[in-house]
Amino acid sequence: MAPGKKGILERLNAGEVVIGDGGFVFALEKRGYVKAGPWTPEAAHTHPESVRQLHREFLRAGSNVMQTFTFYASDDKLENRGQALKITGAQVNEAACDLAREVANEGDALVAGGVSQTPSYLSCKSETEVKAIFKKQLDVFMKKNVDFMIAEYFEHVEEAEWAVQVLKASGKPVAANMCIGPEGDMHGVSTGECAVRLVKAGAQIVGVNCHFDPMTCVKAVKMMKDAVEKAGLKAHYMVQPLAFHTPDCNCQGFIDLPEFPFGLEPRILTRWDMHAYAREAYNVGIRYIGGCCGFEPYHIRAVAEELATERGILPAASEKHGMWGAGLEMHTKPWVRARARRDYWEQLKPASGRPLCPSMSTPEGWGVTKGHADLLQHKEATSSQEMKHVVELQKKAKST
Amino acid sequence: MAPGKKGILERLNAGEVVIGDGGFVFALEKRGYVKAGPWTPEAAHTHPESVRQLHREFLRAGSNVMQTFTFYASDDKLENRGQALKITGAQVNEAACDLAREVANEGDALVAGGVSQTPSYLSCKSETEVKAIFKKQLDVFMKKNVDFMIAEYFEHVEEAEWAVQVLKASGKPVAANMCIGPEGDMHGVSTGECAVRLVKAGAQIVGVNCHFDPMTCVKAVKMMKDAVEKAGLKAHYMVQPLAFHTPDCNCQGFIDLPEFPFGLEPRILTRWDMHAYAREAYNVGIRYIGGCCGFEPYHIRAVAEELATERGILPAASEKHGMWGAGLEMHTKPWVRARARRDYWEQLKPASGRPLCPSMSTPEGWGVTKGHADLLQHKEATSSQEMKHVVELQKKAKST
Amino acid sequence: MAPGKKGILERLNAGEVVIGDGGFVFALEKRGYVKAGPWTPEAAHTHPESVRQLHREFLRAGSNVMQTFTFYASDDKLENRGQALKITGAQVNEAACDLAREVANEGDALVAGGVSQTPSYLSCKSETEVKAIFKKQLDVFMKKNVDFMIAEYFEHVEEAEWAVQVLKASGKPVAANMCIGPEGDMHGVSTGECAVRLVKAGAQIVGVNCHFDPMTCVKAVKMMKDAVEKAGLKAHYMVQPLAFHTPDCNCQGFIDLPEFPFGLEPRILTRWDMHAYAREAYNVGIRYIGGCCGFEPYHIRAVAEELATERGILPAASEKHGMWGAGLEMHTKPWVRARARRDYWEQLKPASGRPLCPSMSTPEGWGVTKGHADLLQHKEATSSQEMKHVVELQKKAKST
Amino acid sequence: MAPGKKGILERLNAGEVVIGDGGFVFALEKRGYVKAGPWTPEAAHTHPESVRQLHREFLRAGSNVMQTFTFYASDDKLENRGQALKITGAQVNEAACDLAREVANEGDALVAGGVSQTPSYLSCKSETEVKAIFKKQLDVFMKKNVDFMIAEYFEHVEEAEWAVQVLKASGKPVAANMCIGPEGDMHGVSTGECAVRLVKAGAQIVGVNCHFDPMTCVKAVKMMKDAVEKAGLKAHYMVQPLAFHTPDCNCQGFIDLPEFPFGLEPRILTRWDMHAYAREAYNVGIRYIGGCCGFEPYHIRAVAEELATERGILPAASEKHGMWGAGLEMHTKPWVRARARRDYWEQLKPASGRPLCPSMSTPEGWGVTKGHADLLQHKEATSSQEMKHVVELQKKAKST
Repeated sequence: MAPGKKGILERLNAGEVVIGDGGFVFALEKRGYVKAGPWTPEAAHTHPESVRQLHREFLRAGSNVMQTFTFYASDDKLENRGQALKITGAQVNEAACDLAREVANEGDALVAGGVSQTPSYLSCKSETEVKAIFKKQLDVFMKKNVDFMIAEYFEHVEEAEWAVQVLKASGKPVAANMCIGPEGDMHGVSTGECAVRLVKAGAQIVGVNCHFDPMTCVKAVKMMKDAVEKAGLKAHYMVQPLAFHTPDCNCQGFIDLPEFPFGLEPRILTRWDMHAYAREAYNVGIRYIGGCCGFEPYHIRAVAEELATERGILPAASEKHGMWGAGLEMHTKPWVRARARRDYWEQLKPASGRPLCPSMSTPEGWGVTKGHADLLQHKEATSSQEMKHVVELQKKAKST
Repeated sequence: MAPGKKGILERLNAGEVVIGDGGFVFALEKRGYVKAGPWTPEAAHTHPESVRQLHREFLRAGSNVMQTFTFYASDDKLENRGQALKITGAQVNEAACDLAREVANEGDALVAGGVSQTPSYLSCKSETEVKAIFKKQLDVFMKKNVDFMIAEYFEHVEEAEWAVQVLKASGKPVAANMCIGPEGDMHGVSTGECAVRLVKAGAQIVGVNCHFDPMTCVKAVKMMKDAVEKAGLKAHYMVQPLAFHTPDCNCQGFIDLPEFPFGLEPRILTRWDMHAYAREAYNVGIRYIGGCCGFEPYHIRAVAEELATERGILPAASEKHGMWGAGLEMHTKPWVRARARRDYWEQLKPASGRPLCPSMSTPEGWGVTKGHADLLQHKEATSSQEMKHVVELQKKAKST
Repeated sequence: MAPGKKGILERLNAGEVVIGDGGFVFALEKRGYVKAGPWTPEAAHTHPESVRQLHREFLRAGSNVMQTFTFYASDDKLENRGQALKITGAQVNEAACDLAREVANEGDALVAGGVSQTPSYLSCKSETEVKAIFKKQLDVFMKKNVDFMIAEYFEHVEEAEWAVQVLKASGKPVAANMCIGPEGDMHGVSTGECAVRLVKAGAQIVGVNCHFDPMTCVKAVKMMKDAVEKAGLKAHYMVQPLAFHTPDCNCQGFIDLPEFPFGLEPRILTRWDMHAYAREAYNVGIRYIGGCCGFEPYHIRAVAEELATERGILPAASEKHGMWGAGLEMHTKPWVRARARRDYWEQLKPASGRPLCPSMSTPEGWGVTKGHADLLQHKEATSSQEMKHVVELQKKAKST
Repeated sequence: MAPGKKGILERLNAGEVVIGDGGFVFALEKRGYVKAGPWTPEAAHTHPESVRQLHREFLRAGSNVMQTFTFYASDDKLENRGQALKITGAQVNEAACDLAREVANEGDALVAGGVSQTPSYLSCKSETEVKAIFKKQLDVFMKKNVDFMIAEYFEHVEEAEWAVQVLKASGKPVAANMCIGPEGDMHGVSTGECAVRLVKAGAQIVGVNCHFDPMTCVKAVKMMKDAVEKAGLKAHYMVQPLAFHTPDCNCQGFIDLPEFPFGLEPRILTRWDMHAYAREAYNVGIRYIGGCCGFEPYHIRAVAEELATERGILPAASEKHGMWGAGLEMHTKPWVRARARRDYWEQLKPASGRPLCPSMSTPEGWGVTKGHADLLQHKEATSSQEMKHVVELQKKAKST
């Protein structure tokens, strides 16, 4: 950590609001550096300038954490992609750490090393094997001396616990996020119980990321907070939701929506939606507030602007943004100037411009009749060991 | 021009498809480098890395033209902003040229110097004064030796003609774009007649940019093409529309929509919408196909992918993109794998996720009763010389 | 006519507002007495109590005209249906006249005998043959001594002219309505020209009915009025539109919408929509204001309530209706009481309750690509003489 | 009962499907005979022909029960209205019985005498006083010898129990319906518990009516069935829901929707929605299936057509209705003929024709922030004893 910077727990213990960053995978997919489907982060190694620039934009927007761009960067996940590209997992993870640190040094930000769910777990590999995967990533993070660890995007609390146990051994602070909503994990463990188990496993910060829209995620973290407090435990809370409206999701989140991942545009949150999200997250007691897929730098800036009073600071990028549309005050048209006010944007119900489209979709998947029919119709036979396990896990989740 | 590169007219005369770039002003606003309201491009000077990176992303996406980031960079427009920032118009324009050339040299792209409508025209300045503004920008472009010129975002064909006349004197090829739709310019000159006048003024390429969604813009350029051909003239055609659906616009475009500029998210086009746009533009005979506000790199890539056969090349960024969702073939869930096909995405009617919002809005402004009422209600008195002139021009447009 | 009642022309010449009735065919389909598809009115003979009751409800709602329930009651149309039911066209037409007169006598209403487009015209029968069809219906109307005649629901002005010429011979006043919108008839005759030809053929009242929503119909009648006045002719104007919102129709109206006729519910106008319609129709100078398919008695009552001041009278059914929701003033819940005011209902944007449905549809038919594809796909071969003629007429309409 | 007719319990015990009727109050409001706000049924006395005709339409549509038009016909509710009209409660109730019996005799239908919630209960009158109200109505029903009793539209199970206890004394079979959804009654009694209490009070048939859309009501009745069975009790089940889509309701149902009662049109169910409802109700084991507000005769016909095989009979009105749109087979346009098939209508997502309107609304009332704000804004002070009690009851419901 750069001299003079406060660590993540110091900040949270002092009651500070920590602003997270946004969604690298989705943002870089739109910029041309990540492939939808594999979603792997080899760009950290192959196109560092693109990753560095995105870090910088989030820093300017107010982020206090530069999360290493190591999502799906475990060896087992990278294997196929990496071999094709002649890149090793270590190369990707190391490059990602260097980029995060370089930009963190440009401002008041910490570096967080990130691990996420592994194909090994879904393929029923043993606890030992899965933990070895995490350990290998952790070795890089220790070598590069990141400031703290984030285990995120876990659908099964069991795998998340294993990750926390591995990361905890490093002595660094550990945050752990499930990618679940208020209905619990894919084994049927309640959202609150997931949090209790993660705290018991050693996480100092718990929460959720991805899969659901901001208000749903805040609701889920609130359930975590209530359960942790009821269990007589202590923790800090974080939330890093989607920047997409998902009122029509089932328990498995936005992946089952028919629009995932190439038709989500109409669901993108406005900056004003982000103000409401930041306020709600703050009000329920969450102090680490960031974003995941869909969050662009201006979304994070909106979070920082909403909480400017609480944090005592406006982000650098606010030099290019009038609060509540104030930049429109100079417009030549009077009716555009009239939009330079808070209540205008708060009350606006933005039209989709798509009169032939609905406002909600029916999720696909095991949980729904329609999806099941589609499944049979497309005869997408699932022959691999991995798929069999998924089916079992999900049937189990359904029956509980 | 780099040795061995073909010029813009050579390409178009040979029947090649030229892919334009996307919308710098909107993209950089979301990244934190442009302020909505003034919309000026001083970031070319103050934050060159952000502008360079965006150029690179468009180059990777398939753009054959790096347009200098000089929108609203005329001295009269920059004046207030520039003074505050202690930057001169020349500094901004020169920096923008250098960045465009630097990235153009990394691939098969040309550099286009751009000028756009001026406050001077709206303030009733004389032809001489307005032309002097353009000349000053042109001087920079000549010094930096751009490959060709684009005069764009003109609501009044008279001002566009003046711009073309100035730029023409440089000896460089000149493209000219109105920001109008099928209903003509703000003086009531028909869309077709605008094109005829611009060709007569010396433009070799004519078309429209901004203000309307792709299909509306293509329709407008088709009217231009028909009129130019009917007049026995020759030209090439270009189109650089919004990446927002605007079925509810009136003749003055998306600025009058209540969502402009901070609530447009639900209107953003998907990549599949862009395939349809590229095909339609190609089919009506447009060969310079790009984008304006809202276009992100992946939108341009979709244009390039749709026309890959015609162009004989896929863009570099397609290494990170499976055609028609092919990257989903490896997904663990069978119903997500089933989305890896063209007809799935072509037929998808993406939901907004906003059940409390409508699908269309009522535009504001002089053209509509509601807007007029709002105008009176907000008592946004328009005292300046500029506004008086706007009012006159627009009343005139209405009455014709 | 009952002694003391003023005739239709007397009323219109005096500047009175005449309220028409609503849509018998659709209302009785929902009540179980008309079959969608044939849409024939044999219920006048078989279930007179149902027709009598509907007449009474419209009378109570303010209708000044009891239109005989004789839509599609020409012999050629009734033939198949009538034979099956052992009923003659004369029986149906006579029963319909008796019912209309019986209820008209209960209030201040006139009886109008109605004829509409014939299958004979579409099958290319001669003018003589088609006119004979109208003459046969007219004989019944003369025998039953209706007060005036309405020729309505004509897609081709030529057939409407023939109808007017036949009816005119009776000496009764004649009203003539096309079922077209602002784009003209199916031969491509402009809406204004249709009106001019009908007035020249002898109609004293001209207008449109069915096929489009109220505001579209009012716009079409306005075009008729302008053309008639420009031609130096004189006429009265009437409008009897759908009670369905049809912003997405093409030139052939609501029949081509995918929702026709069994999925139109979400499009039904509210009573408040009817207030706006009545005011707009009045403002453009239409004085015979009624309804067609979808109009229920409460829709007509809303028209009568909107024009209560102009007409100097409230309808009988207003004893059961508080103006602008005033009946809610006694509600136990304060927020429901708060709805008892005009601006509440005028500003309400009523939700569909259908988040999986769009707000607009794509019309089917010859005029649209999608419809054409469906047509080919379903291989609905059109072998009959009638269909060939339709195809020719409609191709003709398209090409003009 | 007419000789040879089976009683309600005989039918249900034999496993027959009994079709209820639809919503008189809403249907007659649209026809001009009921006033929205008071919603009282004096038309049974003042305009018997309108009530008789509606009974006949439901009988033709397949209804096996003619429910007396006595909603809100208790003396305490009718008092103000009745005095104004110089009609007594007994006159209204007797007239309603005569009309129901007259039409029931025309087909295979029974007469059910109906009582509903009273203002007396909301005003905190004693059990004795409230029961006296029901007893007074029951006296009429006994004098007129109805076939069975229905206590319906109760928000508080306590009042419903009192009603059942009174009606039970008659020796007639008793059905009892709450107007609640899956969230329970307004005191916070669960839906299942409500049913158990009503069965214990003596009701042989239990269920829900009004306030929610069909699928929500079916879900609520399923909860009742599960609870009754779990309690080791026996009952028959009935459901008479709204014909409006209400996905956005809170626990108090459609009255809190901003569209209630004059802007509900876009929510009206199609006949095809009714097929799905009838099937779902049948599948969960409900055998008395009818409708409430919004149900028109064609909606009941659709229920009867869906269950034609199970019932072994088509309703009389099906002579005027082709199953699944078959009546369109004769249409001249091939694309309209192509709609004459089941899958077309089942898959149709009907458009609202209202692009400026949303698909869902925010309910008003105590349960929601917005409503609360409106409440304060309109300063609709609630001074009466009745309102105080409502407030208390509803606060109580909220806090449980």
